Amino acid sequence: MLYIVGLGPGSKNLMTQEALDVIKKVHTIVGYITYIHLVESMLNGKEVITTGMRGEIKRSQKALEIAATGKDVAIISSGDAGIYGMAGLVLEVASKMDQQIDIRVVPGITASIGAAASLGAPLMNDFCHISLSDLMTPWEVIKKRVDAAAKADFVICLYNPRSKGRPNNLREALDIILQSKSENTIVGIGKDVARKHEIEKITTIRDLDVTEVNMTTIVIIGNKNTYVSNGRMITPRGYTL
Amino acid sequence: MLYIVGLGPGSKNLMTQEALDVIKKVHTIVGYITYIHLVESMLNGKEVITTGMRGEIKRSQKALEIAATGKDVAIISSGDAGIYGMAGLVLEVASKMDQQIDIRVVPGITASIGAAASLGAPLMNDFCHISLSDLMTPWEVIKKRVDAAAKADFVICLYNPRSKGRPNNLREALDIILQSKSENTIVGIGKDVARKHEIEKITTIRDLDVTEVNMTTIVIIGNKNTYVSNGRMITPRGYTL
Repeated sequence: MLYIVGLGPGSKNLMTQEALDVIKKVHTIVGYITYIHLVESMLNGKEVITTGMRGEIKRSQKALEIAATGKDVAIISSGDAGIYGMAGLVLEVASKMDQQIDIRVVPGITASIGAAASLGAPLMNDFCHISLSDLMTPWEVIKKRVDAAAKADFVICLYNPRSKGRPNNLREALDIILQSKSENTIVGIGKDVARKHEIEKITTIRDLDVTEVNMTTIVIIGNKNTYVSNGRMITPRGYTL
Repeated sequence: MLYIVGLGPGSKNLMTQEALDVIKKVHTIVGYITYIHLVESMLNGKEVITTGMRGEIKRSQKALEIAATGKDVAIISSGDAGIYGMAGLVLEVASKMDQQIDIRVVPGITASIGAAASLGAPLMNDFCHISLSDLMTPWEVIKKRVDAAAKADFVICLYNPRSKGRPNNLREALDIILQSKSENTIVGIGKDVARKHEIEKITTIRDLDVTEVNMTTIVIIGNKNTYVSNGRMITPRGYTL
């Protein structure tokens, strides 16, 4: 049996009971080294297989091969495995194999939801997830989505907002958003959510310092009703108080 | 201390460790009766305060009042409390009080993520959450968002897709989506995810029977690349296999 497990943002605290149970019971754990560290205390006696960054296809094949021998295997992602994680790829690789393997996707707390809880309640109305990584999606498609989301006043969660290889995508996305949203729109950022040096910050599109944003940051841009109260970012659901 | 706790879709299995710990330790639990049932086995000796549906404002006030006396209180939602749940409302009510109360939002697995894991991996590329309930958001705004999301080829998760009071919103939304997406676009539905009579179904926009959809159903409409393999709904991330 192969389990594709989302570990949540980073602390055991935010893992689901099922994810904890699966990690405890499996014989083999496959994952990128950073994710292996997240479950280090639970690895006792297990076979652990790691590959470097961008080794996703290899990891998927390896995990499926081992599961095919009858062992219980967990392939792990941070956040939710089905959101920019390993679930899709593993299922795609599995669909090309001759042998059918039992697979269970174990859901996890994705970064936006973890960050939102620490920031307040920014996702109380309709929202989008957009990854600003153009490694696998053309930048033109991403820009079109950013524009559509801003025009319809969605709350917008930006994943992979900025990295050394893509220093300008966030700035470009914000400029597109500013064509439809006010520069006073509230922005929340969550960095290393549920990890040791977690940082939250609430600001506006105008005052956001993009150089503070990196790959482990999630950026949440409010809708026109989003406001700040007692240091919390709140998107009203629409109740009349 | 007031904890706003998302219980996940319905089974203890998908609660986070923190949610379980909080429910165990608090003195008082406040919630709509259906949510109280979800944690029934953990209520031993606790004060339990329930109100009926649409009692959200009262519940928030009550929970805050009790927390103000120094007790540890949990106010519970299903799914994630910050997504169409109780978190925003509680923070809004709290911001109008004189006394400042310590509040912690405990994130949970929201319905779309729970359903996605059971369906396969439909959320591997950019997606939106849209609630089709027009109780608190004007229907014109919702329709605009549905249209924008479809035009930019987002995967679309529809919350509150259909109820007795709103039998036609889903049909209307699908008709808007069909202006931009093909009628062969894959649709996954998850009904009562992680509960006793859970049902998943994968179909297309054309073949979706809207009468099968109710308030405890989540509808996930794929993007143009979403496909079905081995009975799983997969939206490719973009890897070349």
